[in-house]
Amino acid sequence: MTEPGTTEPLVTRQDEAAVAILTLAQPRSINALSEAMLMALHARLDEIAHDRSVRAVILRGAGDHFCAGHNLKEMTAARAQPDGGFQYFQDLFATCSGVMQRLVELPQPVIAEVSGIATAAGCQLVASCDLAVASDDARFATSGVNIGLFCSTPMVALSRNVTRKHAMEMLLLGDFISAPRAAEMGLVNRVVPLSELAAESRALARRIADKSPAAVKIGKRAFYQQAQMPLAEAYAYAGQVMAENMMAQDAKAGISAFIDKTAMPDWTGE
Amino acid sequence: MTEPGTTEPLVTRQDEAAVAILTLAQPRSINALSEAMLMALHARLDEIAHDRSVRAVILRGAGDHFCAGHNLKEMTAARAQPDGGFQYFQDLFATCSGVMQRLVELPQPVIAEVSGIATAAGCQLVASCDLAVASDDARFATSGVNIGLFCSTPMVALSRNVTRKHAMEMLLLGDFISAPRAAEMGLVNRVVPLSELAAESRALARRIADKSPAAVKIGKRAFYQQAQMPLAEAYAYAGQVMAENMMAQDAKAGISAFIDKTAMPDWTGE
Amino acid sequence: MTEPGTTEPLVTRQDEAAVAILTLAQPRSINALSEAMLMALHARLDEIAHDRSVRAVILRGAGDHFCAGHNLKEMTAARAQPDGGFQYFQDLFATCSGVMQRLVELPQPVIAEVSGIATAAGCQLVASCDLAVASDDARFATSGVNIGLFCSTPMVALSRNVTRKHAMEMLLLGDFISAPRAAEMGLVNRVVPLSELAAESRALARRIADKSPAAVKIGKRAFYQQAQMPLAEAYAYAGQVMAENMMAQDAKAGISAFIDKTAMPDWTGE
Repeated sequence: MTEPGTTEPLVTRQDEAAVAILTLAQPRSINALSEAMLMALHARLDEIAHDRSVRAVILRGAGDHFCAGHNLKEMTAARAQPDGGFQYFQDLFATCSGVMQRLVELPQPVIAEVSGIATAAGCQLVASCDLAVASDDARFATSGVNIGLFCSTPMVALSRNVTRKHAMEMLLLGDFISAPRAAEMGLVNRVVPLSELAAESRALARRIADKSPAAVKIGKRAFYQQAQMPLAEAYAYAGQVMAENMMAQDAKAGISAFIDKTAMPDWTGE
Repeated sequence: MTEPGTTEPLVTRQDEAAVAILTLAQPRSINALSEAMLMALHARLDEIAHDRSVRAVILRGAGDHFCAGHNLKEMTAARAQPDGGFQYFQDLFATCSGVMQRLVELPQPVIAEVSGIATAAGCQLVASCDLAVASDDARFATSGVNIGLFCSTPMVALSRNVTRKHAMEMLLLGDFISAPRAAEMGLVNRVVPLSELAAESRALARRIADKSPAAVKIGKRAFYQQAQMPLAEAYAYAGQVMAENMMAQDAKAGISAFIDKTAMPDWTGE
Repeated sequence: MTEPGTTEPLVTRQDEAAVAILTLAQPRSINALSEAMLMALHARLDEIAHDRSVRAVILRGAGDHFCAGHNLKEMTAARAQPDGGFQYFQDLFATCSGVMQRLVELPQPVIAEVSGIATAAGCQLVASCDLAVASDDARFATSGVNIGLFCSTPMVALSRNVTRKHAMEMLLLGDFISAPRAAEMGLVNRVVPLSELAAESRALARRIADKSPAAVKIGKRAFYQQAQMPLAEAYAYAGQVMAENMMAQDAKAGISAFIDKTAMPDWTGE
C-alpha cells in the first residue's frame, strides 16, 4: 500500500534478524492514521502474524514524532457524504479498533518506540503495544477533548494501562504528559535519551527474540485472555495453557538445559 | 434540605461561571454523611445533572476537613429498632451507594477538593470523583476495620482507583496515608499547599468547563461503561460513541477550527 | 506431611499469639513447590482456616530465599509417563492454582515475608498474598520464559497486582526486579533491611490480629468478591455485606467504644 500518488509505502518494514521494525512513514502528516495508513499497518501486522521468522516487532514513526492520531482533514471531507459521514466514521473507528486489537492478538510481542508526540490514536497505539520505550523528550496526550471529540476509543487502551484517575486526568484535560510521568503511570516501560532510543528498543526486541517463540506466543495470548476472566476461570484456563506449554519441544529442551546447567537450546518454536 | 432544627443547608452550592462548587456544610460533625446529608448531596447532584449551565463540579468540605464518613451516632440509634436496625442499615448503605454512583453517572466531571481528613465513606467520595486534588496535609483512611466495621462499600470505589495490595493495606490496617502517598497510589491527581488548594481545584474545573460539554458528557459516560467490558465489546461500543460524537455540532466546529488554525468555537453543548 | 524419607515437615507452623507463621522448609531446593510441598501448604492453610485462634498469617521461606517456584526435576520425571506427563502436568497446575486460591479464600489475611528470590510460582505466592513485605535485597521474577515455559499461571496473580505493561515486562523478559521496584509497581507493600524483615512482618500481622476477626474475615472475602463485579452489582453486594457487619457483636461494641471514646473491646470474633 502506498501513499496516494506516490510509490512510497505508508508503513515500511525492515527486518534485523528475527526483529521486524515497522515504521509509520508519513512524517509530513506526523504519521497520521489515515484510512490508508490504518489499512497498511493492519496488512503489515497480518503479514508478520504468519511469518515465523519474526519473533518480536518494533513500532515507530518516521521523523521526529511517533504519531498524531487520526487524519482530521480526511475525516472532515467525509462530512460531504449524504449521511454527514456517519457511516464512514463508524467504519473508520471499526478499522482503527481492528488495528489496535490486531496488535494485542499478534503472536509476537510489539514494542512501541516513541519519540516526539504520541497523541489521541497515536497514544492508543502506545497503550495497545505490549511494551513501550520512550525518549526522554517524548510527550503523550489524549487531546481530542480540546477540539470537541473525546478520545473514547483511545481510552479503551489507555484505561487498561493506567489507573482510573490517571486516565481520567489525561482524557478530561487533554494535556501532554512527559515521558517520565508516563513511566510513573505505567504507560511506558522505559525512558532513555533520544540518542539511545533505537538501541534500547532493539535491545529489548532482541532479548525477546532470543526466547522460545512457542512460549512467548502461548504466553502473550494467555495474558490478554485471562485478564478478562474471573479468578477461578482464569486459573482453570491458565493451568491448561501451562500443561500444553510443558508438552512443547522448546519447554522440554529448555527445562532439560536448565536442570543440566547447559546453554539454552536453539529454540524450534514448537 | 436543612440541618434539623436550623435553616442552614446541609450541602451548599455556589456557582462560579459554569463551575458548581458543592460544600458539605456540617463542619461540627466533620461533614459526616448522615442520612440527611446523603439525601441533600444526592438532591444537589440531581439538580446539577439537569442544569446545562454547569460544566464541572467541585466537591469539598466546610471547615478544616473533607469528610469523616458515616454518622455513627445516627447509625447506633437505629439499633433500637425491633430488627436491631438491619433494615435501616441496608437502606442507609443503599442510599450511600446511590450517591457514589450518582457521582459516577453525573454528566459533568466532579473534582474532589480535599483538605484535612477523608475517612471511610469520606475516602470513598474521593475515590468516586473523576479527579481529586489534595492539600499537602490531607490524610486518607478506610479506618472502619479499627472499630469492627470493615469499609466494604468504600472499598468498591477504592479498589477501582488503586492497585490491589495498596487497597488491601489501607483496608486491613486502617491507617492514615498522606496526600503524597495517595498521589503515588493514584487516589488523588495532584497535591498542593493548603493555601493553593481552592485555586488549584478551580483552575482544573475551569479548564474542564472550557471544553465542549457535549464531548465531556459523552466521554465521561463512555469511560465508566467501557471499563466494565471485555476488550472487543469495549471497542465496538467506544467506536460507536466516537462516530456519534463526530456528528455533534461541537465536534464539527472544533475540528474545523483546529484544521483552520483558528480559535476554538464557543461550544454549544450539542 | 514430611519430606520423603525424613520426618521433617515440608511446611512448618509456629504460632505467636494469634499469628501463625508458615515456613516453606526445604531450603536445599530453595523451597521449591514440589507436589508434596503444595499439598503440605494447602493442608496447613486448611488447618488455619478452621482455627479460630489464628487471626493473621505470615508466609515465609526457610534459609536465604523465599521460593524458587515449581520443582522442575520432579516435573521432568513425569515425562516418562505414557502420555508424556500431560495428565500429571494438568493435575499439578490445578493443585498449585488451588493453593493460590486457598490463600485468597482464607478467612485470615496472609502476609508474604520475602527475602532472597521469589521466582515463577514463588513470585505468584507473593502476588496471591493479601500483603507483602520484602527485604531490600529481595528479588522477584517470572522467569519461565527463559527456559521455554511461560509463567502463565503466575501471571494470573501478577496481573491482578500490577499494571499491564509492568506485568508484561516481567513476563516477557524474565528479568529479576529489585524490591524497591516491586514496591513501586505495587507487588509488595513495604521494603525494609533484611535485619528488620521478621520484625516488620510480625508487626503488620500483630496489628491485623488486634482488629476484630469478624470484620477482617467479612472484609477480606468481600474484597475479592466485589473486585470481579460490575460497579452496580458490587455496590449492591457490598452494601448487604456492611449491613450484616453492622449486626455483628464486634461492630456493636467497637462503634460504641468509638462514640464513647473508650478503649476498643476485646473482640469476640462474632
